[in-house]
Amino acid sequence: MAYKKILAAIDLTDETEDVVARVKAVAEQNKAEVSLLTVVRPINQVYGGFDVAALSTDAALIERDVVKQAEKHLEKYAEKLGIPAERTHLGHGTPSHEIKRRAEEMKVDLIIMGTHGRKGLGLLLGSTASGVLHGSPCDVLTVRIK
Amino acid sequence: MAYKKILAAIDLTDETEDVVARVKAVAEQNKAEVSLLTVVRPINQVYGGFDVAALSTDAALIERDVVKQAEKHLEKYAEKLGIPAERTHLGHGTPSHEIKRRAEEMKVDLIIMGTHGRKGLGLLLGSTASGVLHGSPCDVLTVRIK
Repeated sequence: MAYKKILAAIDLTDETEDVVARVKAVAEQNKAEVSLLTVVRPINQVYGGFDVAALSTDAALIERDVVKQAEKHLEKYAEKLGIPAERTHLGHGTPSHEIKRRAEEMKVDLIIMGTHGRKGLGLLLGSTASGVLHGSPCDVLTVRIK
Repeated sequence: MAYKKILAAIDLTDETEDVVARVKAVAEQNKAEVSLLTVVRPINQVYGGFDVAALSTDAALIERDVVKQAEKHLEKYAEKLGIPAERTHLGHGTPSHEIKRRAEEMKVDLIIMGTHGRKGLGLLLGSTASGVLHGSPCDVLTVRIK
């Protein structure tokens, strides 16, 4: 009954610490292999329906900066969890869809994620959890962030 | 980081087996104390808005039968999990509310429940999971029922 493959879907706020601690505990209990994922949403999705081309600043630059920050955070948490680069993933798109898609692709048997995250530009939101629940290919452990 | 108190919220279909097996595994891994809960909804809530008084059959009798069946199932699963009667609970009301209310009251640190259950008269539905997620006082493990 032990979980063998875990996908930890994190956002990149400080609150990630709680989720990462839980991932570590569950991975050790189950002797499971952990993959780490964070999803950056396209900026025109973050501000639904707005006209990216009409921006005074180059939206592509903002997205590039968000991606850079996301990569740095991912690296930090991957190191904490001892996860090698090939199991550390940066996704683009709608977080809940992307998490489910990757979970299916990787054939994981458990997704771990936070249920409440501070909202940050283009970063994975805690409210994504209900979206993941609907039609998830596997069990989902949602960690309550205080 | 181990979970100390688990609330297993089950419905009473055959698919409960999957959830119970997972509860058993997680409880053993964490050496946690498990309480078992199932929630029976009032019949006028199951058939939203209909007039109970106008029924040709006595609605109270149906509810009583559902409660009887629920008690029998609860007993069966409590035995499987080695849970004493004082930690076996039959709730009445809206499942997601009742699960969160009891979780808070019992100060559990993990709720385990199924994410997809066959729909049965007045029994806890798998779709209750998203309702529990919203505003849950603790972590939630949702077990994917195949």
